[in-house]
Amino acid sequence: MSALHQVFENGLEHVELLPATNDNHGGVIVEMEGAMGSEVFATLLRASVSEWRRQGKKGVWIKLHIGLANLVEPAVKEGFRYHHAEPNYLMLVYWIPDTICTLPSNASHRVGIGAIVLNDKRELLVVQEKSGPFQDTGVWKIPTGVVEEDENLFMAATREVKEETGIDTEFQEILAFRQSHKMFFQKSDLFFICMMRPLSFDIEKQELEIAAAQWMPLKEYADQPLTQKHKIFKYIADLCSAKMQGEYTGLSPLRITSAFNNSFSYLYLNSRDLNVSSNSSDQF
Amino acid sequence: MSALHQVFENGLEHVELLPATNDNHGGVIVEMEGAMGSEVFATLLRASVSEWRRQGKKGVWIKLHIGLANLVEPAVKEGFRYHHAEPNYLMLVYWIPDTICTLPSNASHRVGIGAIVLNDKRELLVVQEKSGPFQDTGVWKIPTGVVEEDENLFMAATREVKEETGIDTEFQEILAFRQSHKMFFQKSDLFFICMMRPLSFDIEKQELEIAAAQWMPLKEYADQPLTQKHKIFKYIADLCSAKMQGEYTGLSPLRITSAFNNSFSYLYLNSRDLNVSSNSSDQF
Repeated sequence: MSALHQVFENGLEHVELLPATNDNHGGVIVEMEGAMGSEVFATLLRASVSEWRRQGKKGVWIKLHIGLANLVEPAVKEGFRYHHAEPNYLMLVYWIPDTICTLPSNASHRVGIGAIVLNDKRELLVVQEKSGPFQDTGVWKIPTGVVEEDENLFMAATREVKEETGIDTEFQEILAFRQSHKMFFQKSDLFFICMMRPLSFDIEKQELEIAAAQWMPLKEYADQPLTQKHKIFKYIADLCSAKMQGEYTGLSPLRITSAFNNSFSYLYLNSRDLNVSSNSSDQF
Repeated sequence: MSALHQVFENGLEHVELLPATNDNHGGVIVEMEGAMGSEVFATLLRASVSEWRRQGKKGVWIKLHIGLANLVEPAVKEGFRYHHAEPNYLMLVYWIPDTICTLPSNASHRVGIGAIVLNDKRELLVVQEKSGPFQDTGVWKIPTGVVEEDENLFMAATREVKEETGIDTEFQEILAFRQSHKMFFQKSDLFFICMMRPLSFDIEKQELEIAAAQWMPLKEYADQPLTQKHKIFKYIADLCSAKMQGEYTGLSPLRITSAFNNSFSYLYLNSRDLNVSSNSSDQF
């Protein structure tokens, strides 16, 4: 019982509640960690929600470690819905008031990068993939990949190029990005096209995912039938041309200190137009 | 039994398996919809995974409607982990091979917008919020909000400004964006700063979230103590100044047709530098 909070009322009775902390939006958060039988949990949950309703609480969050999968069903039976899940836990939520639910939504977007790496012979670093939609199509494409949790875009671009082709690069700027919907698992998708400067030139392709890799004359890339068909390929070719002619400015990262927790974040902006000077901020 | 697939082996025995379809990456997807007892499910799941292992399958996905919360525990007991959840379902996953797991990760980013709306008196549309980190701070900030599932960035910006202030706007371009980590529920965050042209000027603030709204001289916004302290406020002020002087170009949306399913997506690029002409694509 040591994990349970006790609320004494009138000095006579007490109601056992689930351990909870208040959030900043008038709700409570329950983080279940120790094992508990599903019937005990259901009883405590019912009493707790009733008490929180009396207190005028709004959203009730329950974070269940995967070891407590036996508590998912009783929570759902009490009216909870899923909010999000990570490999090791499931977050459920219940909105108590009759008013409109203002609970924040789950992470909605997957984020990917594509890397434009041009050498000084007007050649573009391209790969053929072993799986996915371009498998066995013979199409040459720029290295792409998913931005991992907590990974900065510019780091993801450097990492993916290195992993797929062995080429070391220096990130320069975001040239463009695409927002798509109903992609993987019906989630939305943001795909950032990154300009990279090569620091090495000898290709060593990755075996697992990459069928082939090469430096390809830009014209050949642009002339592929698929480049003509798929607008995104066409714009990548256009962006390459514009960059080679020195005509195009994208958004480059500036390191700034986060307002609330002193951690760093990165602001990507058109630093040519804004005239950002290195003494005005933590420059990238 | 009609929902179950049967595999006949040697013409003698058959093994009942869970209903599954193949994915494009050597795995299988099980979508459970009808009710099933947890013990029957556990038995079928064990037999199915065994069969899929024999067939050399890789990832096994199980999508459980929330009405089947009783099946979460047996799946976890068979070694499944959570992949992601939406209000009405939970996706679990199991990687069969001994090789490194190449399953795609969950949506990792929440996406938000902030809207810069300037009138021709050099005044910025600003609000004070009733909740959140700026509650009771007296700080005036630009309207911000979360991009909803399947919502285009430019639509989200127009919607949030209208909801919070009643002002109609026309989206112009993305001026900059910030990537932060370990934000809400430890997820990463992309925050897009949008330039909007006002189409109306009479403010009608929203009651639920907004304490006050006004057109504020840009200098007053920039001179707020918090603007000095928080770099993101400072850069928003700098971007306003640059835009008013006509010196800054961001990224504007072009509608392009998605390569695989003929749906639309939007590519945001520096259309001034790329010289995008309206006959070269589906112009925004």
